[in-house]
Amino acid sequence: MIRTTRWNEVLDSAVWLFSTSGFTGTSVQQVAERSRISKAEVYYHVNGKEDLLYHICHYSIATLLSDIQKALKGQEDSIARLRTIIRIHAGFFLKHPHNLAVLNQQMRNLSAVRRGQIERLERGYLNLIRETVGDGLRQNVLQRSNPTVAAFLILAMLNTLDRWYNPRGSVRPPELIKQVEQTMLHGLVTCKSKGKQ
Amino acid sequence: MIRTTRWNEVLDSAVWLFSTSGFTGTSVQQVAERSRISKAEVYYHVNGKEDLLYHICHYSIATLLSDIQKALKGQEDSIARLRTIIRIHAGFFLKHPHNLAVLNQQMRNLSAVRRGQIERLERGYLNLIRETVGDGLRQNVLQRSNPTVAAFLILAMLNTLDRWYNPRGSVRPPELIKQVEQTMLHGLVTCKSKGKQ
Repeated sequence: MIRTTRWNEVLDSAVWLFSTSGFTGTSVQQVAERSRISKAEVYYHVNGKEDLLYHICHYSIATLLSDIQKALKGQEDSIARLRTIIRIHAGFFLKHPHNLAVLNQQMRNLSAVRRGQIERLERGYLNLIRETVGDGLRQNVLQRSNPTVAAFLILAMLNTLDRWYNPRGSVRPPELIKQVEQTMLHGLVTCKSKGKQ
Repeated sequence: MIRTTRWNEVLDSAVWLFSTSGFTGTSVQQVAERSRISKAEVYYHVNGKEDLLYHICHYSIATLLSDIQKALKGQEDSIARLRTIIRIHAGFFLKHPHNLAVLNQQMRNLSAVRRGQIERLERGYLNLIRETVGDGLRQNVLQRSNPTVAAFLILAMLNTLDRWYNPRGSVRPPELIKQVEQTMLHGLVTCKSKGKQ
């Protein structure tokens, strides 16, 4: 789909409305009003509300995945690769906080076929993290762990940021990203104390 | 409220229905059918569907918090206390997998007053974790971090287990608890590799 300024405005309005009022609590009329265009113009771009939700979910996961794949190019070290994944994902959330909220909480409102398409992209992302952990285990730089569990724990931290983090609060975005990365890679405990536990 | 066997059956049925079909997708009639009692008998225990949801949310967070407080009694070491919190919370999820799903996903269906009551209990739990992290920082056994962010990251890992973990899959429950605890306290990276990063 051609991404015009007008189309981007429609998507942004829908993202904001779906994330604050939910998919069922939002009407195409409200999306049109927020984008300052007519309802007919919204229907020029999409077939309906579910179409909008699909484009938001698809854009969110496809962009995140492609940003990460680009950033990983030429990176061989597994720890550096995991750090890149965490940084890009947290950065994507900070840039588009409502997109991840819609993807995580509203995707169930898609038709089975379209939900399947988004889930395939999500599985691709999960596999990328799982394989990176698997490489790190083979290189003996990661603690013995199950790569699937590790991948889900990384995603748990990143995909719930929208539930609690306030970018206007006392913890600045770079500090947040650093702490998520530090916790996931090195844990809460200092190296000095590890021997005792 | 007196916790009779019959009342427990009603609650268990509602938990299962709310977690699989959602609050809006469940009727009191279905709760009655699953509990093998009449609808009138359900209304003998509660005023309606929202009342059931409130009791489930209250039971879940109050029991989890009281189990943790009991287990922490006499424990002074911050790392051991964090380990206890993670073990008891993950254990509660494994014992009552649908309760946490209802608490995390359906609580928005409560009235503002009742949601406020549950949120106060949740804040008490968040504060307990935050204070434990703060103690660990003062004792110099934890990495420099923001205790509020650390508390939310711990809760992120624990409160999303219901979204992906299958207790009948290849990772057994004790292995899962060990990996969550290991990742949160010590991170994914081996101590040997830490100096290089």
